[in-house]
Amino acid sequence: MPRVQTPRYCCPDLIGIEHYERWVSRDLIEEIQQLARQLRGIRVCHINSTASGGGVAEMLGSLVPLCSTLGIQADWRLITGDEQFFRVTKTFHNALQSAGLDLREEALAGYLERNRVSAEQVHDEYDVYVVHDPQPLAIRHFASTDHSKWIWRCHIDSSKPNPPTWEFVRPFVEEYDAVVFTMESFQPADLNASCLRFVPPAIDPLSTKNLELDEDLYCRVLVELGISLRKPVLLQVSRFDPWKDPLGVIRAFHLVKQEIPALQLVLAGGMATDDPQGGEMLEALRTEAAGDRDIHVFTNLGNLEINALQRAAYAIIQKSIKEGFGLVVSEVFWKRKPVVAGNAGGIPLQFPDDYQGFLVESVEECAQRLSTLLKQPAQAQGFGAAGNAKVTADFLLPRLLRDELQLFADVL
Amino acid sequence: MPRVQTPRYCCPDLIGIEHYERWVSRDLIEEIQQLARQLRGIRVCHINSTASGGGVAEMLGSLVPLCSTLGIQADWRLITGDEQFFRVTKTFHNALQSAGLDLREEALAGYLERNRVSAEQVHDEYDVYVVHDPQPLAIRHFASTDHSKWIWRCHIDSSKPNPPTWEFVRPFVEEYDAVVFTMESFQPADLNASCLRFVPPAIDPLSTKNLELDEDLYCRVLVELGISLRKPVLLQVSRFDPWKDPLGVIRAFHLVKQEIPALQLVLAGGMATDDPQGGEMLEALRTEAAGDRDIHVFTNLGNLEINALQRAAYAIIQKSIKEGFGLVVSEVFWKRKPVVAGNAGGIPLQFPDDYQGFLVESVEECAQRLSTLLKQPAQAQGFGAAGNAKVTADFLLPRLLRDELQLFADVL
Repeated sequence: MPRVQTPRYCCPDLIGIEHYERWVSRDLIEEIQQLARQLRGIRVCHINSTASGGGVAEMLGSLVPLCSTLGIQADWRLITGDEQFFRVTKTFHNALQSAGLDLREEALAGYLERNRVSAEQVHDEYDVYVVHDPQPLAIRHFASTDHSKWIWRCHIDSSKPNPPTWEFVRPFVEEYDAVVFTMESFQPADLNASCLRFVPPAIDPLSTKNLELDEDLYCRVLVELGISLRKPVLLQVSRFDPWKDPLGVIRAFHLVKQEIPALQLVLAGGMATDDPQGGEMLEALRTEAAGDRDIHVFTNLGNLEINALQRAAYAIIQKSIKEGFGLVVSEVFWKRKPVVAGNAGGIPLQFPDDYQGFLVESVEECAQRLSTLLKQPAQAQGFGAAGNAKVTADFLLPRLLRDELQLFADVL
Repeated sequence: MPRVQTPRYCCPDLIGIEHYERWVSRDLIEEIQQLARQLRGIRVCHINSTASGGGVAEMLGSLVPLCSTLGIQADWRLITGDEQFFRVTKTFHNALQSAGLDLREEALAGYLERNRVSAEQVHDEYDVYVVHDPQPLAIRHFASTDHSKWIWRCHIDSSKPNPPTWEFVRPFVEEYDAVVFTMESFQPADLNASCLRFVPPAIDPLSTKNLELDEDLYCRVLVELGISLRKPVLLQVSRFDPWKDPLGVIRAFHLVKQEIPALQLVLAGGMATDDPQGGEMLEALRTEAAGDRDIHVFTNLGNLEINALQRAAYAIIQKSIKEGFGLVVSEVFWKRKPVVAGNAGGIPLQFPDDYQGFLVESVEECAQRLSTLLKQPAQAQGFGAAGNAKVTADFLLPRLLRDELQLFADVL
């Protein structure tokens, strides 16, 4: 279980709860400071499976150093494995989201073995272990800790899991002192947890993914990527995964383009290091897009480039069929962009009340809503502003930090 | 030969010679505008082997759209090939820089075949073809053009080539209407060219690699990369190639660290798509760096991230043993950073007169000069300012554009 090189020094010039005061209430800041005083000196260890790529890694990248500035020793460790291990855990991940997948015995044995080996490096040195998602779930079972509390933080929708997979997973989950799902509707029906919480994720307005960028800068990024500044850009940022439906996005784009020809589509997908299936999908959608020079597909862009694309886009697509929370929706609402998105997972929760009509169920609906936004710029702008207000109220990092600290206080 | 998606629209808000007026003389701008009027309507096609990664691709990314805003139709095409082709051309590249390498007959046959196939797509539709470096060199030989002029632009030091390789290459070179080397000292002794020019490269202060960044932004980039803001950063940005001596950089760093323990080293190397040897080197230097958590190695960072690292660094290392021009030195002088560099290729030309003592020949010298810069911040700052003045005078994009347009005017 290697450590992640999170910045161990406190860095008050850049990171510190007071930098968020311009966006959130004084009450929330004080509540956080009060909890931090109460918890001062505790040691927390987060364990997940990837140091970069994907929402969990991003959130930990912000939360862990921020916790440190508040006097809580927060660390972050990775469970590692070979390609085989990550193939199994990806299947797990999918099966908990209800796919009809069968896991073979030897795959499960390999999964358990990897968790057992990682658990050997756990020496009861932290007060709280926070284990994220299924990959390192069984570490708690194998770890010999007497004094530590264990929290399992599940980021995916597990309300309708594949039954045999869930039966395999459930005993490991039930050994935890607390279990956190993103939303109430994400929990499996028959989970027997001693402490159950629901905590949605949040975005960090100070991260390179979200911080303000000059228009000169973000336009220049587009030019260098070969994207025209003269035709509106529609953008989907997400892994190249069937459940994000990038092929459906291309089909919807082609429908809108029949009506509004001067239009570009950008698909930008990070390839997370724990996702071996991204490559095949990427090939499929390059085939689907073949011949249309207004479609741009990018992999491996940095956070600053993603930030720039989001700021330069006219409207955002997030055509998910299945989602965890779909935090990218909050990222783009933060940048005041209108969004047409699949009615899945946590996405509706992030949509402002008056704009729920932009949640769609099909390629045709997606195309129709995009067309509306393109023809009615004032509505598009109002939608973006309402989205920004919603994120400001509910989905910024300080709220998430408060919820985490509250949970630590409750389990200890 | 696929096209590169360079922005075909003119983009006067961002790109246009007038945006450079704040840095260069009014006379130079007028000279460029005068040449552009004279050449208006000509069609120019650049051919190279990679659309991203490496100095040539970067320069074309700036020059090609800028030319278009001046009424010259500039295009950019790529020669493509399989891994075998690029292995051969990389060997070529090395052999022209004097390595004792033997190229086997069938490798040469494959090289010529790839050039012949690419030449089939050349239909005399441009007034000037500019062919960069050895990869697409032989296209001119196979292309049936009656009216076009052909320029070979060699970016590497070919003054002491491997004799059999040069004998193979020379007839292809001598078919060109003009040949351009970066510096006089880079030409082979026995080249018989009808028109020979020497044009050093230049940096684009408006590109994402060089444009001004807020301190908040570039510091945040460091934090997210896991780099401390509390210890000075020494930085080398270059491909992981033996001639950039990254292993020597690590050894020099360890020497300096004995004296000044609170220090970090960042090695950031883009992996160009036409360089199959980068992977092995990367592994070697990860071994050399093993165990030192103050050494950070990054691949595949975006231009904005590189820009941020350069701005955040205390001093720059460019410990090249062989170089073409080493334009990265101008990039960091532009950012007012002091540089300790190998006395190779075009590097000395970029150094301000009073600071030639920071050109080094060994690991020990490199360590000693870095130590001086770390102990004498005022000298380090003066050095950076002198570097900036030198770049402003000699190595900004408008000067390069003027030289290119002048050459077009002369050959047509």
